[in-house]
Amino acid sequence: MILDRLKSLKQVDFVLASNSPRRKEILSNILGLNVRVIPSTFEENLDKSKYSPQGYVIENARQKSLEVWKRLCSFGDRPGMVVGGDTVVVYAGEILEKPSDNAHAFRMLRMLSGNEHKVYTGVTLIYCENEELKEHCFVEETSVSFADLTDADINAYIDSGEPMDKAGAYGIQSLGGCFVKGIRGCYYNVMGFPLHSFCRELSNLASSGFKLQEES
Amino acid sequence: MILDRLKSLKQVDFVLASNSPRRKEILSNILGLNVRVIPSTFEENLDKSKYSPQGYVIENARQKSLEVWKRLCSFGDRPGMVVGGDTVVVYAGEILEKPSDNAHAFRMLRMLSGNEHKVYTGVTLIYCENEELKEHCFVEETSVSFADLTDADINAYIDSGEPMDKAGAYGIQSLGGCFVKGIRGCYYNVMGFPLHSFCRELSNLASSGFKLQEES
Repeated sequence: MILDRLKSLKQVDFVLASNSPRRKEILSNILGLNVRVIPSTFEENLDKSKYSPQGYVIENARQKSLEVWKRLCSFGDRPGMVVGGDTVVVYAGEILEKPSDNAHAFRMLRMLSGNEHKVYTGVTLIYCENEELKEHCFVEETSVSFADLTDADINAYIDSGEPMDKAGAYGIQSLGGCFVKGIRGCYYNVMGFPLHSFCRELSNLASSGFKLQEES
Repeated sequence: MILDRLKSLKQVDFVLASNSPRRKEILSNILGLNVRVIPSTFEENLDKSKYSPQGYVIENARQKSLEVWKRLCSFGDRPGMVVGGDTVVVYAGEILEKPSDNAHAFRMLRMLSGNEHKVYTGVTLIYCENEELKEHCFVEETSVSFADLTDADINAYIDSGEPMDKAGAYGIQSLGGCFVKGIRGCYYNVMGFPLHSFCRELSNLASSGFKLQEES
């Protein structure tokens, strides 16, 4: 694990290539890392039909991180590590992202009601080792079991305004958590960033010789 | 579920018979309830050998809530509902509560490392119906799978000061979350209060005729 290296980790100049307040919270507030948020301008227009859910989130995370890495480097600002993430909900073979409007959110939540779905988050870490660009990708899967929801429950939840910026139209870390009977796997993955596997992968990189770069 | 009744729930005068900031956060910040925190003076000196883990947490929660209910009523201050909770970690048949010192925290975390343990939270709801005192109890179980920890990981975690006020010597909602490979069941139960089952039980009480008491 990585806790024994937390002091050096806190000196790394991490850049989060994502606008998600949940990802920022996990990296800054929970792990206590030094994180700059620089959202990617990558369009996220990949053709879903060409990817598995796992391949889809990894490729999105990869494109987001690479775009930010290149943009910063073009300004002569080379970060210690760029972290990109992408999260989707998958039910009955369909990839669900953020709902486009209230009616879309309603359809998603009606589908998830009383059923188990999967959440996938792909993470890409971009860094430089001996002047060579490195990409390290991984994906985490969590199963989420939803309670039976009435239309009134769903409408009350939509009225709270919470579903709109969230994959699958719910947030487990807030009011949407009431709907979740249980999960199998990592909770933080459902929030949008798999905390344990991020620590595990960083730890493996550090053990296999990756020097935690310190801020200049 | 209870979201369709959230507006009336927000008018109930809830009293939380617990000093846990996590329980307060779940009820106030996530559900948005109106909660007064009045920690119980119940001594928590039950003989563990006489109870199953489930029975133990329920009896602790019950004694805490009853003590607070009676104390408030003796001042003529009858709340809408008193909510009490008690959480323990169970590994290899042993009930683990808060560690008594750093060495105790180390022994607990060494035991949990690389293994799966259970977390039980007992909840008791005390309220009045037609001038009759009612007690409603339930318990939630979640399995938690820990990563293999080195002594250095454990010591770094203890140095963070986080383990001391937490059952099993870790907090899933903060740095201790790094150690958790995955869970089976409700995440909020591991934090100390089972959000979904609380909503479900309140909903059942409301459906079976319990009138959500409004603040006077």
